[in-house]
Order: sequence, then C-alpha cells, then structure tokens
Amino acid sequence: MRKPASIDEISKILADLPTADDSAAADTRARDGILTKPPGALGRLEEIAVWLSAWQGKAPPSAEKPAVLVFAGNHGVAARGVSAFPADVTVQMVANFERGGAAVNQLSHVAGAAFKIVPLDLNTPTEDFTRAPAMSEDGFVAAFGAGWEAVPKPCDLLAIGEMGIGNTTAAAALCMALFGGDALDWTGPGTGVQGEALSAKAQVVQEGVALHRDAGHAPIDLLRRLGGREIAAMAGAILRARLENIPVLLDGYVCGAAAAVLHVAAPGALDHTLAGHTSAEPGHRKLLVELGKKPLLDLGMRLGEASGAALAINIVKAACACHTGMATFAEAGVSDG
Amino acid sequence: MRKPASIDEISKILADLPTADDSAAADTRARDGILTKPPGALGRLEEIAVWLSAWQGKAPPSAEKPAVLVFAGNHGVAARGVSAFPADVTVQMVANFERGGAAVNQLSHVAGAAFKIVPLDLNTPTEDFTRAPAMSEDGFVAAFGAGWEAVPKPCDLLAIGEMGIGNTTAAAALCMALFGGDALDWTGPGTGVQGEALSAKAQVVQEGVALHRDAGHAPIDLLRRLGGREIAAMAGAILRARLENIPVLLDGYVCGAAAAVLHVAAPGALDHTLAGHTSAEPGHRKLLVELGKKPLLDLGMRLGEASGAALAINIVKAACACHTGMATFAEAGVSDG
Repeated sequence: MRKPASIDEISKILADLPTADDSAAADTRARDGILTKPPGALGRLEEIAVWLSAWQGKAPPSAEKPAVLVFAGNHGVAARGVSAFPADVTVQMVANFERGGAAVNQLSHVAGAAFKIVPLDLNTPTEDFTRAPAMSEDGFVAAFGAGWEAVPKPCDLLAIGEMGIGNTTAAAALCMALFGGDALDWTGPGTGVQGEALSAKAQVVQEGVALHRDAGHAPIDLLRRLGGREIAAMAGAILRARLENIPVLLDGYVCGAAAAVLHVAAPGALDHTLAGHTSAEPGHRKLLVELGKKPLLDLGMRLGEASGAALAINIVKAACACHTGMATFAEAGVSDG
Repeated sequence: MRKPASIDEISKILADLPTADDSAAADTRARDGILTKPPGALGRLEEIAVWLSAWQGKAPPSAEKPAVLVFAGNHGVAARGVSAFPADVTVQMVANFERGGAAVNQLSHVAGAAFKIVPLDLNTPTEDFTRAPAMSEDGFVAAFGAGWEAVPKPCDLLAIGEMGIGNTTAAAALCMALFGGDALDWTGPGTGVQGEALSAKAQVVQEGVALHRDAGHAPIDLLRRLGGREIAAMAGAILRARLENIPVLLDGYVCGAAAAVLHVAAPGALDHTLAGHTSAEPGHRKLLVELGKKPLLDLGMRLGEASGAALAINIVKAACACHTGMATFAEAGVSDG
C-alpha cells in the first residue's frame, strides 16, 4: 500500500475509511453467548473480543502477533526549557530501547509482543512552534509516511507510543488547538516539571496555539504546525493500521494527541483503536473524554514509550484466549441456567 | 507447617502475624529510583514491585512461579432460589475447570500461572444459614485447613478465587454481619438474578444475619455460620500465604468477603494482599472501601473463579519485569535530569 504523498492524499484516505466487519462481530457475539459463564460476566473482555473481530474482519479473532511500535523525535520547543530532562535524553533513550533496557522492552516481553523503535531524524529537531510551524509540508508528510511504513506484518494487534523530550508540550498545544480550553487545562508535568517551570510550559503552549490556531484550521495542518515527527508518525501508523485490519491500542497523552487529530479530521477514524490506559498526565483524562474512550487500565503510569498500551496487550490477549479457548455449555455439559 | 486444629488456633495465628520486610522493600525502592524513567512514571507498577519485595522478603522480588487457586463449595442456601443457575452447576463447572474449559483456565495460561481447583465436599451442601450455622466447628476447621494445605509450593504469587452456586448470598451475609448496613447494600445479581428474585435474595441475607449476628460476634465464627466451605478455604489459604511469604491477589466479591473476615479479626492481616480487580457485583466496590484496597483492574468482570485475580497476575509480572529488567541511568548512559 503506497504511503500518502501529501496532506491532500491523507485527507482523501480519511474521507473514505474502511468500516467494521459487522458479520464477523456478530459471529463472535454469538459464540460469546454460549460459553460457560453467565452472560456478560467477563465484562469488557467480552466487548474486546467482539471489537477485535470487527476490526480484524474475522471470527474468531486472534491476538497471536502483537507488536509494540515506538517513534522517537526531537522538538525545537525543548529549547524553551519545557522538560525536566535535557533533549539529549531522546537519543540516549533510543539506544536504551535498542539494547532492551527500557520499561517498554520488559513490557513487550511480558506481553509476548514484537518491539520496534523508529527514531526520526533526531539530530535535527523540529522548529520551535512558538516561532514557526514545527514541520514543513514535506517534512510532515515524510514523518507521517515513516509511521505508515513502520506498521509491521504480520501483526494482529498494535500498541503505539513515543519518546521525545518536549513532546507533552506539543501534545498540549495540539489538544488546545483541536478542542479549545485554556493552556493550563492541557499542560501537565510531563517528565516532572512543576511550579514556575510548569507555568512557563503552559505559556509556551499558549504562544504556539496563538500563532497557529487560525492559520491551521484543518486538523492535519495543526499536526504539522504544532506536532513533532513522532506525533505525525503515530498518526500515520494508526491510519495505516485501519487499512490493514489491525486493531490498535493507544498509549498515553502524546499518542492520544496524535490520534485526536484523526478523530477531529474524520469522526470514527479511531473506532479500530482502544485506549490502553489513562495516563497520570492530567490532560490525558480530559482528552479521553473528548475521544469518547474508556481506558482499559488506570495505574497512574505517565512514562509514554507505549508502556501503557504494551501492558494493555495482556488484557486483549486474555480476552481473546477466553473467547477462543473456553468450552461452550453444550461441550462442557454445564446447565445454562 | 501444621494446619490449625481449631478456631482458637486460627485466632492465635492471627494475633501474631509476620510483618513486612522493610529492608527488602527499601532495597527495591532504592533500585527503582535509579532505573531509566522519571521518578514515579511507572505509577502503581513501582509500588507493586516494592510490595512484592516487602512480603516475599527479598530484593529484587520475583513473579516467576505464579499460581491460581480456586475452591468450590455447595451451599444449603442455594435451595432458597438465590441464583440464576441450579446448584448442579458447581460440580459441572469443577469438571470444566479440570478439563481446562473455563475462563480461568485460559486466564491462567495467558498469565503463565499454575492452576489448581479444589472441590470441597460438593455432594453435601452446607446447612441453609437461615436455619442453622452453615458449618459445625469441625466442618469449618476442615474447610479452612483444606485451604491452608492447598497453597502450592514453590509459589511466589498466588491468585485466589472460588466457584459455588449461591455463594454471593453467603458473601453478602458475611459482609453485612461484619460491616453493618442494609441487606440491599450488599446483595447483588450474582450470576444474574434481578427484580423479585433479587429482593428475595436480599431477604435471605437479612434472615441469615438476623439469626447469626448476635450469636457469632467473632469474625471467624461469623465465617463458620454464614460462609461456605470455599469461603473458609480461601481465608485459610490467604492466612497460610502470609506465613509462607507469598503475596496474594484477591479476586472479587466472594473472595473479598473471605478476606474481610481476616481483616476484621486482625487489622493488617491483608497487607500481603492486593485487590486484583473490582467486580461488577455492586457490593464489591463497597467492600473494597471497607478493606482500604484500590483494585488493580476495573473491567466490569463478575465471574468469580479467580478470573480477575488471574488477569491481574499479568500486571504484577509486568511490574516485576520492569523492576528487574530495566537498565539504570548509569548502565544506559542516560542523563538523569
């Protein structure tokens, strides 16, 4: 599948998205009803099995080839002192991912998932969005296309996340530009800024939104102006997964901001995704309300790097295992009440 | 370790419980602080690693030998029509567990956990607690001892649950007797009763509590009078695990009621346990408040059979994997902010 070559091509794809396979979903719902449990007693695990079927286009669904995909980018706005960590940490952490030493490496292993890290031109940060658009159209389309092409095959469940010093600032600016509200509503501690540094971070968000909101009415153009390469790449991967029948688990705030661009551009564009977790980053809870997503996990995590989404793979695997492995009332000789 | 031979011996054990290993916990907390993540960014996963260390008495902690332990019992009170399923289902489901066809079999497999089902004298239901104590002292001590002896070795994490038609009625009666409130506060649909059948179930709970609350002031005696064999066995297993340095994941409402008996008898008796999940059975949320437990998962499950606790094993394994597998800032050459 050729990657989109322009914002216009991305918009055309968004205007004609594949829909759920209602027939596969109905088959999975029917089998769910005869498994050895009271109806509905597995709660969201039952809903997850039906959702997997609907978006994989098959019954029963599978969760045998999960993958975790992390994009890394550097941000011009980091020079404004918006993070508790220096920008060098992005490239250092990419090396940590590659050597298997980060949290998400362990979480991918526990979930039995393949792991891929995709660094995006880390030596050249995007522009500081308080002064100029973060990316040119060509730069944006290249980053979006890197995400599009990174979606692994074969894969039946994809957890998506990011690493990038400064990127909760970009996420906050994107959310404010997309959904309104005050900069302080969307700006949080990220890696740990507080007090005056947090106020200064909110001011940076405010400046960026003031510069770009009116210029970039279209959500995709706001992503180019206020986002970063890893945020653009996540949007590209989420969209590509839709076309490849791969259900997606979203990670936290920055991943959610990437997803939100697609949601605002095309309502329903996130129907093949679930929120893996609620981040402790305060804007994320507000964002999930905007997206209409109820997270699978709420464990106070705020690390990014797909950690919450990778952890949620275990829940989806469990849902799938129950659906495919349980006996029916008839098979087990159990009275069905 | 010899199993207790009387209620008096159980009470003596509860009066002299082993405490947490603060030194192991401190070592784990110290290592947590130098791993490649912002402080606290893994949220509850970090707390879980410290908790595991404290109760396993070692640093680093492990989650390599998890086990799921399910007790099954039959209840005289089931003859009062308190369940949507006939009492025969208990023995039928035990056969389903033994053949690997139940939800918890799949969930144990996903979590990499050993699974054991312990049926307790299913052909002889306990007495209907609206007419007499559910168990004699000998019968109670035998069931408690069966739980005590069922704790597997080696094991470094134990998920505990149950199966027993009628047992949400027993759990409701126990909770009301222990914590007060109205029968309707504690009585829920269980396998699916509603409307008049639910009102009748609450009436049964009310009758049982009226008969036994004043006679059985001591929590352990209330467990004998209002519980069931699987509920007594869960209490025995939870207590034994404390003495064996095995952290425990509690399942839903019925397991929580068994645990609550220990909690009321000896505050702190559940410090080596976490609530694996919140059940959709409405009394469970109220019970967790009484126990001071914040559940790991909240997925609308209400199946029992240790399903929520077994699913939560994945979270604990992930916490342990991050703690033991992550690189430190120094090892990874990452700037620590």
